[in-house]
Amino acid sequence: MNVQTRPPRQPLNGVDTPTLINTINFVAGQPDLAKFQFRASNEWLDGTHSRTTMRDFHGAGGEQAHVMTYSAEGDHPTVLCGGDRAPTPVEWLLHALATCLTAGIGNIAAARGVKLTKVRSFVEGDIDLRGILGISNDVRNGYRDIAIRFEIEGDAPREKLQQIVEQARARSAVFDVLSNGVPVSVSVAGK
Amino acid sequence: MNVQTRPPRQPLNGVDTPTLINTINFVAGQPDLAKFQFRASNEWLDGTHSRTTMRDFHGAGGEQAHVMTYSAEGDHPTVLCGGDRAPTPVEWLLHALATCLTAGIGNIAAARGVKLTKVRSFVEGDIDLRGILGISNDVRNGYRDIAIRFEIEGDAPREKLQQIVEQARARSAVFDVLSNGVPVSVSVAGK
Repeated sequence: MNVQTRPPRQPLNGVDTPTLINTINFVAGQPDLAKFQFRASNEWLDGTHSRTTMRDFHGAGGEQAHVMTYSAEGDHPTVLCGGDRAPTPVEWLLHALATCLTAGIGNIAAARGVKLTKVRSFVEGDIDLRGILGISNDVRNGYRDIAIRFEIEGDAPREKLQQIVEQARARSAVFDVLSNGVPVSVSVAGK
Repeated sequence: MNVQTRPPRQPLNGVDTPTLINTINFVAGQPDLAKFQFRASNEWLDGTHSRTTMRDFHGAGGEQAHVMTYSAEGDHPTVLCGGDRAPTPVEWLLHALATCLTAGIGNIAAARGVKLTKVRSFVEGDIDLRGILGISNDVRNGYRDIAIRFEIEGDAPREKLQQIVEQARARSAVFDVLSNGVPVSVSVAGK
């Protein structure tokens, strides 16, 4: 045995680490497999209330489907004259951020052989609604800033756990999109 | 009666238009009421699977709470070695965009006296996963682009319906954040 060889990682934290690493190596050799398209379709229900369906996506060289069709709703809170039948759209952004970073933490900890016992996070987004209410053109519509704070515990020193969070941030799709923006086109289907 | 006076809008599309307009006018006179903070807390469950809770928020001059505590999960799909127990974080971004624009369409149509009969939208986001997989440093982690296409019907000419969608885009918090980005800070709680 070559003592320089790192032992293969075992499944950990609910992550099938060997398969994950094999997948990454396989995709590295066939970059087209990495081209994904995620999709959602939404239907207006009433007032500010709508429902989104998420089922199919493209990637890994073909059409894929979730194991089931997921749906979720959005609404405005009553204090903004909505029906509060679901979280607000801007809360869903915070949810996307937390789930993305946390998934990364799960994967990265497993790849580094760290057994996690707890990961919790708290996200806050500050927004001045004079933008969306059309009261001021000097106020942006969206969040002014977003902050997420993690509590993380596992069988590694605090510094190593912090490095895992940092690496999750450095490779987070949602963190990137929120931090750097992305071109978004809005169109209306013709008839 | 002054014929120059526009008649007050009646509730329409499930939107209490008079209350919405009164709210906007009230906030215009007391800008501090427009300062909101939305929040979410997330707990890692296993692997890439986590659950977010959304309940409290600040705004309208005080602490607010949803009519119920909302929760939602996120996970990676099986093709990315996740458990597919929920939509992916990047799909949640598409959901946030669709629900935000659609809520705006509901409000704006009501304010303009247009009765809507159908609003559907289809969102697509293209992403090259070589970024998040750490295969290439030249590929961004997040979406390269996002496109949302609306189908909208109501008792107004097509051009007026298109203008409602355009105004929803122009005042969408999520569209702004995704298009222009927002500062996001990530921290780890000390012990």
